[in-house]
Amino acid sequence: MNLANRSLITIDDLSNGEIETILFLADEMAALINDQCEVCRGKIMASLFFEPSTRTRLSFETAMLRLGGHVVSAVDIGATSLAKGESIADMARVVGSYADIVVIRHPWEGAAKVVADYAGIPVINAGDGSHEHPTQTLCDLYTLKKEKQTIKGLKVALWGDLKNGRTIHSLAYALARFGATILFRPSPGLEMPEYALRKLTTEYEGKLERDAETLKHAFQGRLFPVDAMYITPSHPHQLAMMPDISIQIELKTGVDALYVTRFQRERLTAPPEAQEIKKDYLVVDRKLFKEKEFKRALVMHPLPRVDELAYEMDADPRSMYFKQAARGVPVRMALIALLLGTLGTKEVTIPKENESFVARKDYPIYKRDSGVKCPNPICVSNQETEARYIKPEFTIVSFEPLILRCVYCEHELYPKYIASSDWHEGRLENKKYHSADSHLIRKIKPANLIIFAAENEAQARGFKPSKYVTGH
Amino acid sequence: MNLANRSLITIDDLSNGEIETILFLADEMAALINDQCEVCRGKIMASLFFEPSTRTRLSFETAMLRLGGHVVSAVDIGATSLAKGESIADMARVVGSYADIVVIRHPWEGAAKVVADYAGIPVINAGDGSHEHPTQTLCDLYTLKKEKQTIKGLKVALWGDLKNGRTIHSLAYALARFGATILFRPSPGLEMPEYALRKLTTEYEGKLERDAETLKHAFQGRLFPVDAMYITPSHPHQLAMMPDISIQIELKTGVDALYVTRFQRERLTAPPEAQEIKKDYLVVDRKLFKEKEFKRALVMHPLPRVDELAYEMDADPRSMYFKQAARGVPVRMALIALLLGTLGTKEVTIPKENESFVARKDYPIYKRDSGVKCPNPICVSNQETEARYIKPEFTIVSFEPLILRCVYCEHELYPKYIASSDWHEGRLENKKYHSADSHLIRKIKPANLIIFAAENEAQARGFKPSKYVTGH
Amino acid sequence: MNLANRSLITIDDLSNGEIETILFLADEMAALINDQCEVCRGKIMASLFFEPSTRTRLSFETAMLRLGGHVVSAVDIGATSLAKGESIADMARVVGSYADIVVIRHPWEGAAKVVADYAGIPVINAGDGSHEHPTQTLCDLYTLKKEKQTIKGLKVALWGDLKNGRTIHSLAYALARFGATILFRPSPGLEMPEYALRKLTTEYEGKLERDAETLKHAFQGRLFPVDAMYITPSHPHQLAMMPDISIQIELKTGVDALYVTRFQRERLTAPPEAQEIKKDYLVVDRKLFKEKEFKRALVMHPLPRVDELAYEMDADPRSMYFKQAARGVPVRMALIALLLGTLGTKEVTIPKENESFVARKDYPIYKRDSGVKCPNPICVSNQETEARYIKPEFTIVSFEPLILRCVYCEHELYPKYIASSDWHEGRLENKKYHSADSHLIRKIKPANLIIFAAENEAQARGFKPSKYVTGH
Repeated sequence: MNLANRSLITIDDLSNGEIETILFLADEMAALINDQCEVCRGKIMASLFFEPSTRTRLSFETAMLRLGGHVVSAVDIGATSLAKGESIADMARVVGSYADIVVIRHPWEGAAKVVADYAGIPVINAGDGSHEHPTQTLCDLYTLKKEKQTIKGLKVALWGDLKNGRTIHSLAYALARFGATILFRPSPGLEMPEYALRKLTTEYEGKLERDAETLKHAFQGRLFPVDAMYITPSHPHQLAMMPDISIQIELKTGVDALYVTRFQRERLTAPPEAQEIKKDYLVVDRKLFKEKEFKRALVMHPLPRVDELAYEMDADPRSMYFKQAARGVPVRMALIALLLGTLGTKEVTIPKENESFVARKDYPIYKRDSGVKCPNPICVSNQETEARYIKPEFTIVSFEPLILRCVYCEHELYPKYIASSDWHEGRLENKKYHSADSHLIRKIKPANLIIFAAENEAQARGFKPSKYVTGH
Repeated sequence: MNLANRSLITIDDLSNGEIETILFLADEMAALINDQCEVCRGKIMASLFFEPSTRTRLSFETAMLRLGGHVVSAVDIGATSLAKGESIADMARVVGSYADIVVIRHPWEGAAKVVADYAGIPVINAGDGSHEHPTQTLCDLYTLKKEKQTIKGLKVALWGDLKNGRTIHSLAYALARFGATILFRPSPGLEMPEYALRKLTTEYEGKLERDAETLKHAFQGRLFPVDAMYITPSHPHQLAMMPDISIQIELKTGVDALYVTRFQRERLTAPPEAQEIKKDYLVVDRKLFKEKEFKRALVMHPLPRVDELAYEMDADPRSMYFKQAARGVPVRMALIALLLGTLGTKEVTIPKENESFVARKDYPIYKRDSGVKCPNPICVSNQETEARYIKPEFTIVSFEPLILRCVYCEHELYPKYIASSDWHEGRLENKKYHSADSHLIRKIKPANLIIFAAENEAQARGFKPSKYVTGH
Repeated sequence: MNLANRSLITIDDLSNGEIETILFLADEMAALINDQCEVCRGKIMASLFFEPSTRTRLSFETAMLRLGGHVVSAVDIGATSLAKGESIADMARVVGSYADIVVIRHPWEGAAKVVADYAGIPVINAGDGSHEHPTQTLCDLYTLKKEKQTIKGLKVALWGDLKNGRTIHSLAYALARFGATILFRPSPGLEMPEYALRKLTTEYEGKLERDAETLKHAFQGRLFPVDAMYITPSHPHQLAMMPDISIQIELKTGVDALYVTRFQRERLTAPPEAQEIKKDYLVVDRKLFKEKEFKRALVMHPLPRVDELAYEMDADPRSMYFKQAARGVPVRMALIALLLGTLGTKEVTIPKENESFVARKDYPIYKRDSGVKCPNPICVSNQETEARYIKPEFTIVSFEPLILRCVYCEHELYPKYIASSDWHEGRLENKKYHSADSHLIRKIKPANLIIFAAENEAQARGFKPSKYVTGH
């Protein structure tokens, strides 16, 4: 395991063993904080925040300074180089030639990946739109581990805005990987995105129960109604054929942690909608925590909070949110030192590798310049300034049905038409396109696959409809 | 005397002896500036500015760096966490878990106190609305002391915007405590607030002369007309029975310092009013300083200046304002090192304690949740985001008449109705409220006192008017 | 040669030998970057950016940190002290008493000079309006030198926005001084300002060819049409009497560097005009670089770029722009260390002084308070807040015709009327003013010269028109 000179863009960039190493080292860093640590002496971190953030930025900057390093920072730079029309890829190249490591927050999803691709130095994603915020997840895992010793087998409820909360997405993936069971309790209208739920089942092999009747029956009015539940395959009680009984058994011992999130009002475009959602937003308070199912439940929150978590909980020993924040500094110290590779001869004692339940999937890449675009308007691949550098690029998550996943923002795309690039090997009348759901997709080699979002694109490239096109 | 781990929110948080220690240490720090001082090596200051400020912030940050420490800063963060609806109490807790000391400027009066209450580390108030700016006062006292050797017995004129200038309020209290006489010369409409003038007489025991005729007669056209004058009890010439003669004697030798302030236009809400005031604003120039009463007078100004202090004064040896600014660095170095407690084994030679003229008053606290609110709309206790954490809280400065002083912003409140919480010890018909100015107030124990801002509040809590309610 | 305690406001503040020393030292600094250099330990740089800039600011701050120094920074402070109406001269005095060196960017032309005049510590101009950006020029020269060994005799084409690009102005002067030939290729409407072209001929003694027919004939359709060409006197091929043949010979071997600049849209006030210019803006791409004249041409750009430099050029080995940016750090390290004088006993090996072709001109100064104002509306001398400190001041570049050059922003002024201050030595009827183009200008001693922008000003001061006033 060697983290030196790597970047952290999504939580999946780290193996379970690497995450455990970071958390282990964080303990050592916490002990070092009051010493005059010189681990990163002479190194410079560029802290680039294209969105306002006080908490996360100061946590990273404090971490670097506690390591003996330096910081240059550019805050709220939306108005700066962007105003001049510069691409973030260019900016990444330049800043990468100044500093030793970059921390970036940006409103575009996938922006941190672009910066990592061009900077030439390690890059840490401090939040890219609603996509990921992997260091928050490291802090969350660190707290779960310190308080509950292990993450495997824990039951964690995710509560509130599951749609826009980037911390939620990174966390859900990590919990699945470490063998936790996840209860999804969104506020109405703020459910987990489909692509994120799908990733849980395709990538981490647990079972996702979403049937409303089953869930209702299983919960029998206990705890709170959940919208979906991810049941880890690591759990001995799982009885795949009897989901409601399985869930009942799961919940008997209560939840281990309730992860509350703020309603990310700023990510909505329509204010009336925001008002509606605000009204129905779920609040966690002392009354809820009197229920016996929460007896041993940690209250977690990535902060800042507004009203969704009552202030009366602050004195409760189960409340972890200020500890989570404080622990961000040693966790980030560990991460920065490992990415910079400055621990050098200092021995990093690595804990025994915790097996992932699944190896990371090796999906085929689709990168043809064929007019298939990411459907997410704030994906970095859809930004005018970036289009000069980067082309749409997808992993093919599934062939039947055909599902593409954007490599930048992980949003999914379900294209309707396909063709094969080897049509010319036959005769001209082979230059045809087909419905993506026809059986022909099995006959096209992945390397030859051409994908079209719409028929007119296929036709514009000289393809004609085959009989496997619906309606022709 | 031990300043370690304490906060500096108002100048009254420091005893006279502690102030003298800081000024004494500032001399040593000035000598150290060009060495590579390592007194605060490894320590981190969080510099949080919710209002724009270049000068004060850079002075603090320079001081910390000169001590060998580090700085993380968040500038103009009004738009950041506040936009997400976070309370400053939450922010204080989080930043307090990152850094070793916090410097905060905030537009809400009392905000620095809230931060100090929750941060868990030393907090320095770098200006909270129009309330206080105690480190500016330390710089002012340092300059007075270096130029005049002592503050006791000095005559200092405060000139310009005495209403909105927070530096003026902190300075007036400090001058009174060190035994100076103060001449108030406001620009029309910008007089000292009543609560600040009252504090001078109730807390520091000097005499406040405000009678226009007396002042006019006493000045006899010499110097400039003053609006009020605080005469220190330390002065041998004070003849309490003959105020005008006393003042004449006082002024015979001229003033020792003229403290000029900028018109704080940005604190006014009504632009036409601002135009009016601007027109009448008093200007200090070479012509004024030709008068013999100013022969030995220092010209002081907290900067930035606009037009109230003529540029032709810059070359005058009596002009101190750029020296004041420069001296801010060693003064703040001394303060930071003392609050961090990092001087450790280095011996701090403490000068003989200069007696305060009065011990700090120990007023009773009023903290009932009874609907009495601070009348200052920009007091931190009146902000929606803070109401979850903090309740209105007052000191009872006087019972007859009844005067409350907000513990956050020091604005005063004169409530009209009172009751006693021991009504139930008698019969139900005892549950009555009275006029605050009735003699009954003497019969209620302070611990039992209930205060209402209005009759309907008393009635809403089930109290009925007694015969000691005017109009009933 | 001693740079300690000096400021760098325009590239002409440095002799050729001093520039060579900086570039030489930059090589040493580049080697030091990964060591823990302590050359400026304990020193503080104040980084004051009144205009947004990420790249330049981070380059300076990185340089200072790599030298072991500290940084305090104030970013986008337009809204801060300026809002309070403070002069930058006051700000300079105060910040000069905190820090050891100041780096300033400001939208007003000449602002950096004012800061240098008042700060009392070394000041570096990081860009003042469209005036100068001398450290960018040092980076450009460094790259030319590293890639081409010498600047003498090079042919450099300046491309794009030659009007608003401050980097272009500083660079053109430096190229002339080091003996390069310059080809001007502006986008339509964005030609070099007249004052800058004039300075090339009056100060650096080369020949400026601007005749369209001559240039057209000389180029014979090769390369690209140029608007003007500065032919260095150092070049052996120069045949002054046959400019077109001379130019043909010059161009035979192609250009050595093409310096591309972004269209500085933000400096235009009229958006429709911006649209027009944008449409015609010249683009440098791979097709252009296939021409044999560019075979050995470096592609340079100060960045950020928008569309004027195609992304397909990035992989071309002739492309230097990212190298230019990266080299900014060691160049600025060298400059900062020299201005701070911290290299001390460390020996700076100084290369043999490269002779300037011309000594810097010693023009007479015109500083009378006579109503002659700089015609540039964004010159610092025309700002209300600065008028208290600074008076218009000019060098008299030429008497016949009369040309004044503003000492702050270098814009030119062609006043129409003159008089002599020794009129009173004669009789009252001598108090007359004359046309600036009359022969009388030769009879007035420079020390006695009075200059008027308009007749009514002369008359307001009691002068009457002489017979040498046109139209009287």
